[in-house]
Amino acid sequence: MQVPAGELLQKINSPSDLKQFSEDDLEQISQELRQYIIDVVSVNGGHFGASLGVVELTTALHYVLNTPYDQLVWDVGHQAYGHKILTGRRDNFHTNRIYGGLSGFPKRSESEYDTFGVGHSSTSISAALGMAVASHYKGETDRQHVAVIGDGAMTAGMAFEALNHAGIANSNLLVILNDNNMSIDPNVGALKEYLADITTSKPYNSFRADIGYVLAKLSAIGPDALKYAKKIEKSIKGTLLKQSNLFEALKFRYFGPIDGHDVKHLVKVLRDLRDIPGPKLLHCVTVKGKGYALAEKDQTKWHAPGLFDKITGEIKKTYYEKPQPPKYQDVFGHTIIELAEQNPKIMGITPAMPSGCSLNLMMKAMPDRAFDVGIAEQHAVTFSAGLASQGMVPFCNIYSSFMQRAFDQVVHDVAIQKLNVVLCLDRAGFAGADGPTHHGAYDLAYMRCIPNLTVSAPMNEEELRNLMYTAQQENAGPFVIRYPRGNGVMVDWQRPMKAIPVGKGRKICDGEEVAILSIGAIGNEVVIATAELNNEGYYPAHYDLRFVKPLDEAMLHEVFTKYSKIITVEDGCLDGGAGSAVLEFMADHKYQAEVIRLGIPDAIIEHGEQPELWAECGFDAAGIARTVKKMGLSQNRHIIAS
Amino acid sequence: MQVPAGELLQKINSPSDLKQFSEDDLEQISQELRQYIIDVVSVNGGHFGASLGVVELTTALHYVLNTPYDQLVWDVGHQAYGHKILTGRRDNFHTNRIYGGLSGFPKRSESEYDTFGVGHSSTSISAALGMAVASHYKGETDRQHVAVIGDGAMTAGMAFEALNHAGIANSNLLVILNDNNMSIDPNVGALKEYLADITTSKPYNSFRADIGYVLAKLSAIGPDALKYAKKIEKSIKGTLLKQSNLFEALKFRYFGPIDGHDVKHLVKVLRDLRDIPGPKLLHCVTVKGKGYALAEKDQTKWHAPGLFDKITGEIKKTYYEKPQPPKYQDVFGHTIIELAEQNPKIMGITPAMPSGCSLNLMMKAMPDRAFDVGIAEQHAVTFSAGLASQGMVPFCNIYSSFMQRAFDQVVHDVAIQKLNVVLCLDRAGFAGADGPTHHGAYDLAYMRCIPNLTVSAPMNEEELRNLMYTAQQENAGPFVIRYPRGNGVMVDWQRPMKAIPVGKGRKICDGEEVAILSIGAIGNEVVIATAELNNEGYYPAHYDLRFVKPLDEAMLHEVFTKYSKIITVEDGCLDGGAGSAVLEFMADHKYQAEVIRLGIPDAIIEHGEQPELWAECGFDAAGIARTVKKMGLSQNRHIIAS
Repeated sequence: MQVPAGELLQKINSPSDLKQFSEDDLEQISQELRQYIIDVVSVNGGHFGASLGVVELTTALHYVLNTPYDQLVWDVGHQAYGHKILTGRRDNFHTNRIYGGLSGFPKRSESEYDTFGVGHSSTSISAALGMAVASHYKGETDRQHVAVIGDGAMTAGMAFEALNHAGIANSNLLVILNDNNMSIDPNVGALKEYLADITTSKPYNSFRADIGYVLAKLSAIGPDALKYAKKIEKSIKGTLLKQSNLFEALKFRYFGPIDGHDVKHLVKVLRDLRDIPGPKLLHCVTVKGKGYALAEKDQTKWHAPGLFDKITGEIKKTYYEKPQPPKYQDVFGHTIIELAEQNPKIMGITPAMPSGCSLNLMMKAMPDRAFDVGIAEQHAVTFSAGLASQGMVPFCNIYSSFMQRAFDQVVHDVAIQKLNVVLCLDRAGFAGADGPTHHGAYDLAYMRCIPNLTVSAPMNEEELRNLMYTAQQENAGPFVIRYPRGNGVMVDWQRPMKAIPVGKGRKICDGEEVAILSIGAIGNEVVIATAELNNEGYYPAHYDLRFVKPLDEAMLHEVFTKYSKIITVEDGCLDGGAGSAVLEFMADHKYQAEVIRLGIPDAIIEHGEQPELWAECGFDAAGIARTVKKMGLSQNRHIIAS
Repeated sequence: MQVPAGELLQKINSPSDLKQFSEDDLEQISQELRQYIIDVVSVNGGHFGASLGVVELTTALHYVLNTPYDQLVWDVGHQAYGHKILTGRRDNFHTNRIYGGLSGFPKRSESEYDTFGVGHSSTSISAALGMAVASHYKGETDRQHVAVIGDGAMTAGMAFEALNHAGIANSNLLVILNDNNMSIDPNVGALKEYLADITTSKPYNSFRADIGYVLAKLSAIGPDALKYAKKIEKSIKGTLLKQSNLFEALKFRYFGPIDGHDVKHLVKVLRDLRDIPGPKLLHCVTVKGKGYALAEKDQTKWHAPGLFDKITGEIKKTYYEKPQPPKYQDVFGHTIIELAEQNPKIMGITPAMPSGCSLNLMMKAMPDRAFDVGIAEQHAVTFSAGLASQGMVPFCNIYSSFMQRAFDQVVHDVAIQKLNVVLCLDRAGFAGADGPTHHGAYDLAYMRCIPNLTVSAPMNEEELRNLMYTAQQENAGPFVIRYPRGNGVMVDWQRPMKAIPVGKGRKICDGEEVAILSIGAIGNEVVIATAELNNEGYYPAHYDLRFVKPLDEAMLHEVFTKYSKIITVEDGCLDGGAGSAVLEFMADHKYQAEVIRLGIPDAIIEHGEQPELWAECGFDAAGIARTVKKMGLSQNRHIIAS
């Protein structure tokens, strides 16, 4: 739904238009930009608090910088709504995150102002440094390169790697630290505390407390001593604050902290910084959700609240007459507590996604056994391996696409050592509106190639619980459980748990001529397809692989013995995925069958609702049914027989 | 070859034995330990400089700590030879890195003193923190947890992630920063400079220069002022050094820098630290190669020098009458310069492996176009993507197993954005003596599942050059070239380069009944096998896939049309690898053939020489020939025909 923009904002179709206004207009423009974001997001959905927090910064950056010649990289990018609106996408902004519409993140193919595609955190400094080094090499000495990165994103290792390199690189780089003390959940770790210390000048204050009385005494001695005491104080203040700075230690020139909501001051500071060469860091303090009181107050809830009434702040919910199936993440969140109550070895670990994966439930119930380690997937996995080396059973919950960050740690620290780490991959398959950076498309392929791992995917909530139960048993070894974003299919999901034999699949139904082998929750589309096909006289069999590693060889022998037409269905990439595992089995055992593999093709699939994307890739229920029919089954026989 | 140990060292079969000696004996023990490492490594090979540098630290740690109850994690682990020798493996140490012998790295299955398996850098703090948190949870308040990490390893992001978490974790963790200013090559980056600053007390010194004269003036005023001036100086010294410390900023208590070669002082400091709870960092300054003058002088050369005469320091080389084929890494190193001389867009990037991948040649020849970014694979790839976004053509060279660290960056920053980054994966396939942590076993599988990538592997030096030439052409897109450790097969390799059509394979020879499809340099084993088979009357065809993505579909249609027995050969994992790609093609095009896939099985393969490991996995020339014969070919027909 399109909404009208404010009086000044409606005149801004590019940063050049913005530059026509006087500095005195910038506050109003910022307010209109903020209001426009509230207006659009409340009726269309999307990320919310992050973009409100950087409205003034966004306005000031495009006012001062010569974008797109000057290059601006937004870290993560869910805070870049204002940037999109100011750079020619205001009137399309209502299509944000909708199938076929604007991406919820900056994207190179969408605009020349989007210098670098983002989505995952902490890439911006590396990317901007690359741009800056290229400019330096080309002799574009006037060109500015700015990375805007949150304090949450700064906890990820790759940001530190980039600072370490940038500090000694001869390049024109400005890192703006957008310090709002938050990731999606409150930020954690030593860095967060350090930034709070800086903001309240704690190093200087504690030092001053130490020697303050000495200076006071000196001052009492006489005018000369007083003069020198003041000089000392001044020198201490200058040098100590400078030297005690983490970023200065990494050879950045540090500026700030400054108020990130004072747009005119931001303009002044950004102008000054433009003329200072070398690596610089500007520490901006902002409030996530700024200007929308409820969002300021409960920042996690308002990170991406869904649709809401912008006046009352009531978040719109769909009301159902009957109870609905739970989200998979909540099944995880409740079940880990249930298991941990029985098994004292269980611990929970998440890298900065406690509310996204529902580990926040355990963090509240068992604070000494559940850890948010910050945006730090690599550390999360190896920390879990360290726990497992001491006999603990860590459940490390990471979104499938973020687990890509810890691939080496899974190989090197978990799998090679065969440690009992349970890797729970939430948001496997299509992530939906977050789009290609967040789709968990590759996990079955990149996990399946690693020795010693068990790789499983539950078809429903009960299966998820049983797999979690199985994974925490003695000597279960490294265990991957991948499940999708969103709701399951069972209302009555909280059933007693039982162990599943590792590598054992399930037959869902017998059939004739064709067998469909599915893995994970997409199997429910097969169930729908099968029901429809049955009505039309087709009777495919359906098996749930449940494990892609190890495969259920007994079940597959049955399948290849009984059926000569096989369809595999997975919500993961076709190259190297579950279907390929079935082909490997077939080749290794010299079976011959016609096999059609359904799954995510070898292409970047854009954003959209999960069913829209399944349909696009041909593995929604309708696509599966089409494939069964296309295999040339003898429909008539069944109709006649029935 | 076994060598005798020194007088005291030969009495030490465990840390308990070490503890029987007086502190006064520790210097001699350290010297004997150093000599033993020199004696064994000079005749058996292995890593050298790193272990010499921590002899005193190793001795002191096992003297003070109650290992294995107290837990010691060596980062990377190539410096743990002394640790192995002191913990019961002295008399086996001559089997180090030899097929069937001791691992060159700590390994949990080898000794209870090896608390955590290592090989890749920068995992130790995460792992030790996991152990410390587990101990805390179990109430083992007396248990010590120590991570020993180099200043090179500290530049990797995951070390920073771990510090960020550890700083606020309530656990008994000591991080020992082994600061020798080196990775394999000299360490780089802002952190290195910072550590040098600390070591020379630069922050304090520069501050002192600022206000020194003020204090002097004060002192002249009178005895009271002098007293206060001294108090100020003391307070500044204590607080400033403390506050200005990067690690203190991350909530670690910082101690040091201290001399890492003064074993008695180390013992004293380690004892003191044992009683201080919470996260602590001890900054030890050591010299890589300490005690062997040549190794101290040229630390990169002596990182792992091969066999040498310990008296003269002459590194033993095998002399050949004829010129030998070059190492693949040198083909890369020379070729990138050749290409860069023609194409000004080319840049070279390596994360801390300039001498290992031979980018050091370009760094010397074109210092403004070749970058060592430190141990920072994630940053290296995204920095390359940033360069590519500006029209540069970066060649980012990373060992195959280290590329696992940047998997997400390949997906998220390179592939999704289709940027022209050339990823050169050195040490693909078996790494040899470095063992399972370093085998590049998974790259074909984990790269093949990513859209937009071209994934290639050259069979020889000329092919490597041509693929590099192809990859740097306009709009080549993301391009992976993976090649093995060690020498190629061509003496006359420096031939003029030409472009290869992307996705085009090569027919090596026609044949009858069976076709062998190989990918990469292991194809040379197929050539040997084919020659032997021809002598016995078997005539398999041989095709070099050259690309696993995109596949040469025309060639594969030819293969599946002409042959019904297919063997695929790859020096990568079978699950999801090149053979699976062939099976996918076969299924998608409804061919039916018997396919046997040769490659690395679904298991952790230990260390050994490459041919030993190929043989173990059945894809050396002999194994390939066996497989051809096993397929039941009509040998006699050929013998009769010939």
